[in-house]
Amino acid sequence: MAQDDPIDEDRTYYDPDAVPNPTIWREKRRLADAMRRVIEHVVLSDAPQDELSIAADALERYADRLESHPKLVRVMGHPEAATSGDTAAFFDQSPIIGLANPLAPPLSIARSGDRTARATATFGSAYEGPPGHVHGGWVAAAFDEVLGYVQSLGGNPGMTGRLITHYRRPTPLHVELRFEAQLVREEGRKIFTEAQVYAGDTLTAEAEGLFISIPSERLEALATEAIQPEGR
Amino acid sequence: MAQDDPIDEDRTYYDPDAVPNPTIWREKRRLADAMRRVIEHVVLSDAPQDELSIAADALERYADRLESHPKLVRVMGHPEAATSGDTAAFFDQSPIIGLANPLAPPLSIARSGDRTARATATFGSAYEGPPGHVHGGWVAAAFDEVLGYVQSLGGNPGMTGRLITHYRRPTPLHVELRFEAQLVREEGRKIFTEAQVYAGDTLTAEAEGLFISIPSERLEALATEAIQPEGR
Repeated sequence: MAQDDPIDEDRTYYDPDAVPNPTIWREKRRLADAMRRVIEHVVLSDAPQDELSIAADALERYADRLESHPKLVRVMGHPEAATSGDTAAFFDQSPIIGLANPLAPPLSIARSGDRTARATATFGSAYEGPPGHVHGGWVAAAFDEVLGYVQSLGGNPGMTGRLITHYRRPTPLHVELRFEAQLVREEGRKIFTEAQVYAGDTLTAEAEGLFISIPSERLEALATEAIQPEGR
Repeated sequence: MAQDDPIDEDRTYYDPDAVPNPTIWREKRRLADAMRRVIEHVVLSDAPQDELSIAADALERYADRLESHPKLVRVMGHPEAATSGDTAAFFDQSPIIGLANPLAPPLSIARSGDRTARATATFGSAYEGPPGHVHGGWVAAAFDEVLGYVQSLGGNPGMTGRLITHYRRPTPLHVELRFEAQLVREEGRKIFTEAQVYAGDTLTAEAEGLFISIPSERLEALATEAIQPEGR
């Protein structure tokens, strides 16, 4: 992408290295990348059984080890574009864009104007729904994240109240998709947003998101209200 | 769950062992389970850097190995509830319910009546959006899968045309959620569906899905039309 592209300029707002311990996070992101490659290939691979067994054994041992460490104290906000003010939580933890979260394709998202945003993602075979195409649920999930980001540009971010996804045609796997999102208008606490996703020049789906602005105290209270699992 | 529960009875329709090579798939599912545990813990773990580095190295080597095997020829249908008639693809490959797909929580889904379905899932920390709660995108994704399943009960399955998700209150992590879905009516090729998700007795979100019935030939053509990545 050219250096004068407005997306790249604005991307510095989210500096992926602005985390408490960049070296640790670099390793977590590398681990996540490797896991994405395994996820992409394991279901459809004809790997022999002994190879799969050895890998399963090793990963079970590693999971045991990871679980033996205490969890980080929550110092990093939370991972959703809609309401996160925190770079590290947003960039690393999100199940949609998180660099250290193997669930995330990841989607890459940035401001493209005063009240607009652009995002890109390439979905691999692990995200398949209809043959050769992205699962409709993942299309909706990506829209939720992109709309959640663009609604926050108005300065009074909120949570998703209603998300409508219109599927125009199947969205292909293995090609870079481009999401365009707009903050359309604000009415009191209601924030109206729209977005489209393109494969090349082809529109494959559109979305409308209604967000309800919430005070930041209310958001902090959510964390306290959350039902905590035993032993965590 | 009691043995006379209608869900358990109907679940035999989807026999997870009805795959070409059950032993291979057992290992793939075990590998996926271990990866889910790693995914759940890696972001929020305070594991030391050397441990993370060793794991990243090992997983990179394993990804290389997996990629050295050719991909399975597609003999298993495709992984979406909406249109899949195939047990193995549905159960193992789906990014929402696939037992061998580490992206999937997994959601467990079954018929609960003539034109109704029920699903359960427990989302861990890797699926977090607002503090302590499930990412809104994942709530929509789960609805898409559940509605996709229930619309197929009418016998003329189709693809999602429009998905509307109403978020009533935040959906908690770490507790079993229950999805209830209904095939409401069919009008020509249009199939209207609804679903709700509960945490305990609390309704947290609702959805409406409009599906468009498509001939099976059209679905098969999709696989051919799909843009194939190089070298796959």
